[in-house]
Amino acid sequence: MKTSPTLTSCNTLAPTLAIIGDKWTPLLIHALSQEPLRFCQLQDAVGGINPRTLSARLSNLEHEGIIIKVTRATMPPHTEYALTPKGTDLLPILRGMFDWGHKYH
Amino acid sequence: MKTSPTLTSCNTLAPTLAIIGDKWTPLLIHALSQEPLRFCQLQDAVGGINPRTLSARLSNLEHEGIIIKVTRATMPPHTEYALTPKGTDLLPILRGMFDWGHKYH
Repeated sequence: MKTSPTLTSCNTLAPTLAIIGDKWTPLLIHALSQEPLRFCQLQDAVGGINPRTLSARLSNLEHEGIIIKVTRATMPPHTEYALTPKGTDLLPILRGMFDWGHKYH
Repeated sequence: MKTSPTLTSCNTLAPTLAIIGDKWTPLLIHALSQEPLRFCQLQDAVGGINPRTLSARLSNLEHEGIIIKVTRATMPPHTEYALTPKGTDLLPILRGMFDWGHKYH
């Protein structure tokens, strides 16, 4: 019988913390939970982030396979960012973190 | 109608990250999920943590209301650490983080 994984090592939590432990990243992932957004829409959704930081966070999330860039064949074409299934799977965790913070702080 | 809270501010996630963003704390909380444990049992459960670090983490978790100290009237009396309801409410989040890390890394 295969046993279910247990929390025996901090290595099993480190990859998740590396993504969601950032100040802006949880908010960006949440902003993309409804629909793909353009760079400027993400800037509006996550008020206060500067463009350089936003660009760096998006590059990292793309590198990690959390989001993908989608080019729309409009005239002129434009680029949107969308969550991948790997990114979508983070949403319940973020929701849980938010609910806990909201309940107790 | 009261609207449900949304992830509009990083302040709503910061308290949760301040707790679970630590290297050892998620493992300590998980170790206490089954039953209250003594200091030396926690040391065994979370291999590699040094006593000074463990003591500091337990003090912080007690201060945050995540765990409580329980003194057993044995002879000699001994002290155990137990999760509070606030601490127990973190378990689904930790489980979600673990499952995500296990699935994708």
